[in-house]
Amino acid sequence: MSSMSEMTVEEFLETLASSAPTPGGGAVAALSAANGAAMIAMVGRLTVGKPGFEDVQERMDGLILAADAARVEFLELADTDARAFDGVMAAFKMPKETEEEKAARSAAIQAGYAEAAAVPQEVARKAVHLMELAEDATAMGNPQAASDGLSASASLFCAALCASANVEINASALKDESLRAGMLDELAGLKSLADHLLKATQTAFQLRLSR
Amino acid sequence: MSSMSEMTVEEFLETLASSAPTPGGGAVAALSAANGAAMIAMVGRLTVGKPGFEDVQERMDGLILAADAARVEFLELADTDARAFDGVMAAFKMPKETEEEKAARSAAIQAGYAEAAAVPQEVARKAVHLMELAEDATAMGNPQAASDGLSASASLFCAALCASANVEINASALKDESLRAGMLDELAGLKSLADHLLKATQTAFQLRLSR
Repeated sequence: MSSMSEMTVEEFLETLASSAPTPGGGAVAALSAANGAAMIAMVGRLTVGKPGFEDVQERMDGLILAADAARVEFLELADTDARAFDGVMAAFKMPKETEEEKAARSAAIQAGYAEAAAVPQEVARKAVHLMELAEDATAMGNPQAASDGLSASASLFCAALCASANVEINASALKDESLRAGMLDELAGLKSLADHLLKATQTAFQLRLSR
Repeated sequence: MSSMSEMTVEEFLETLASSAPTPGGGAVAALSAANGAAMIAMVGRLTVGKPGFEDVQERMDGLILAADAARVEFLELADTDARAFDGVMAAFKMPKETEEEKAARSAAIQAGYAEAAAVPQEVARKAVHLMELAEDATAMGNPQAASDGLSASASLFCAALCASANVEINASALKDESLRAGMLDELAGLKSLADHLLKATQTAFQLRLSR
């Protein structure tokens, strides 16, 4: 599969809707996070240099730098996610005639699922971290772009939910109970933090509206 | 601006992150909804014709048809949203020397904001309606694609949140109180339904995992 970043938006959507197992929810998690990162940077750029926002200039410069870097990372993670799942599919096609082949195939499948869970876990971690920046963008940036700040938070929240679903379905195939439990524990904390940050950003948005 | 559907994913993200006022959260609302529609169709296509899913074949065929049509509509709504906001910007640039010019400019600004609120309102309405299909895809489709069904629901939920933020910020500029109140009333109902449908789909997903 070619890199998703080079597909047109329409091609990506057609491929997503097809019966190909990738791209799927894992890629959408990463791309939704990239949308969120892009809108944080957008709010920053609609704020810096505008009169009345001198006090937050430094914070906005910081948001732009961090969000631009995150956008590129998330775009790469969309491809990494698809490749990881393709790795699981490839492992299932390994020969299983001899005992040795069976063991090698089973190990490859387990390693594949661990990787296919680890990539969306990383997406969820980075997306929830970035939700803190989306809150600042909404609360401190140009109020005319507050809807873009809240949309950034919603897109990162969506990324965390999509990524979680993909961690959970891939982790459910793992035989290593402690690896699985560790992943699900971290995920529960991330989801709870995401809920909190979305609500805080919704509140910040309402305050900007009523000014 | 060229149609978003023809931009590459990377170009779209770069434009989104720029200081251009469009595309912004309104376009992301529509594109996130298009992602959701695409993943409903994906679950359908990973289910139809597979042994063991004969009972849900008809429902899956229906989901695919509806989701494919919605995907195309949402992609068009992304451009419509950007054009509507560009209309507001153009109205602000109208001459305001004479009383007549001032009145014409003010009317054009109000009409522009009404349209810029109506487009995301339509996106929210369609996205929340489609969340019912995402629940069926998750609950009844191929369980191996249940994470894609839940990701569809999360993407449509994100679309509803982004669209709401855009309705609210544009409606806040409307002088027609009853138009604004009507929009916000409908929006509150849609958001409440979206919350309910996301939770129901999360429950359906957990049931598919534990089978």
